[in-house]
Amino acid sequence: MPIVQGTIELQTTADTDVVDLTPDVSDFIAGSEVADGILVIFVPGSTASVTTIEYESGAVADLKRAVERLAPRDEHYEHNLRWGDGNGYSHIRAALLGPSLTVPVREGQLELGSWQQIVLCDFDNRPRKRRVLLRLLS
Amino acid sequence: MPIVQGTIELQTTADTDVVDLTPDVSDFIAGSEVADGILVIFVPGSTASVTTIEYESGAVADLKRAVERLAPRDEHYEHNLRWGDGNGYSHIRAALLGPSLTVPVREGQLELGSWQQIVLCDFDNRPRKRRVLLRLLS
Amino acid sequence: MPIVQGTIELQTTADTDVVDLTPDVSDFIAGSEVADGILVIFVPGSTASVTTIEYESGAVADLKRAVERLAPRDEHYEHNLRWGDGNGYSHIRAALLGPSLTVPVREGQLELGSWQQIVLCDFDNRPRKRRVLLRLLS
Repeated sequence: MPIVQGTIELQTTADTDVVDLTPDVSDFIAGSEVADGILVIFVPGSTASVTTIEYESGAVADLKRAVERLAPRDEHYEHNLRWGDGNGYSHIRAALLGPSLTVPVREGQLELGSWQQIVLCDFDNRPRKRRVLLRLLS
Repeated sequence: MPIVQGTIELQTTADTDVVDLTPDVSDFIAGSEVADGILVIFVPGSTASVTTIEYESGAVADLKRAVERLAPRDEHYEHNLRWGDGNGYSHIRAALLGPSLTVPVREGQLELGSWQQIVLCDFDNRPRKRRVLLRLLS
Repeated sequence: MPIVQGTIELQTTADTDVVDLTPDVSDFIAGSEVADGILVIFVPGSTASVTTIEYESGAVADLKRAVERLAPRDEHYEHNLRWGDGNGYSHIRAALLGPSLTVPVREGQLELGSWQQIVLCDFDNRPRKRRVLLRLLS
């Protein structure tokens, strides 16, 4: 089985940066010349996640508020007491949403819904240089 | 690598319809004649998710109450202000639970637990015609 | 395509046991002699999940508190009324976090972040003997 490997490198901003990866992912698939397969998207690191959402500013703002309810920034975190980096909430958000996503590819296109984009959620409390890994199986 | 493609088409009802996909998924695997592999389940769209649960009416009712706590229907959503379709809560629930799931297959059977079923959660606020994509890698 | 199959068997303790699977998973990959591929991790059962987290005692304690907020143990659950086993909260936590995870493998190594481990979260209210399934595609 051929597995085509790709990487998206990007710079994020602090405090729940939600970045649309779909254009870069689509470019990767086009460059692979694979028609039908399965794409795995994975973000290394324990303070970021990958999911899908309708990437419009309203829904993105709503997601930021939802993860603030899920793991409030000013909640008590044991992680903060021990490591002093203040990003205990980031770790919890990332563990709950998860680092991996799998999307079918057909005729060279991601099989997403019309209003569905692939996003990186960087929950860390400081800007990060991130690598998102792409693996296309066919 | 052969990838066998399948689709489940179904009509959902409004407001968090949780549908057991396991019988249709099992039929697809039986028809594929694949013994050992990996099954990817993916729902296109930004207001639905795929996960597993014990599909009995109590646990399903509990899941509906849990997602109402997670992203309450009557919470303020920026998405609703901008688009007027009133399903901001649906988008958030779908982004948090995610659209993809991967399940091993062995000797022609899904390797689920005894009380574990694969479910589509349609969070939208109106009935939808949904397509669930199946990709069996072996 | 070759798919290498593996299983991790373990005994968990009651009430949100979070177990680091990374050493056993790494041993499995080393034994497979696969250099580049994709690893699927799946836990059969409807009261456990697989995710990643920085496996240090602070973040693990924070995760336990977060899932208690997400699906409180003493909340009302229909599942408990019908089945009397008192683990309604376990089912909800497992459905929300999900049973599957996919991680790229490169040059014989999991492509995790430096502080990112693969964990089994057993949410059940009694000790369980668990099987975690590994499938390495290359």
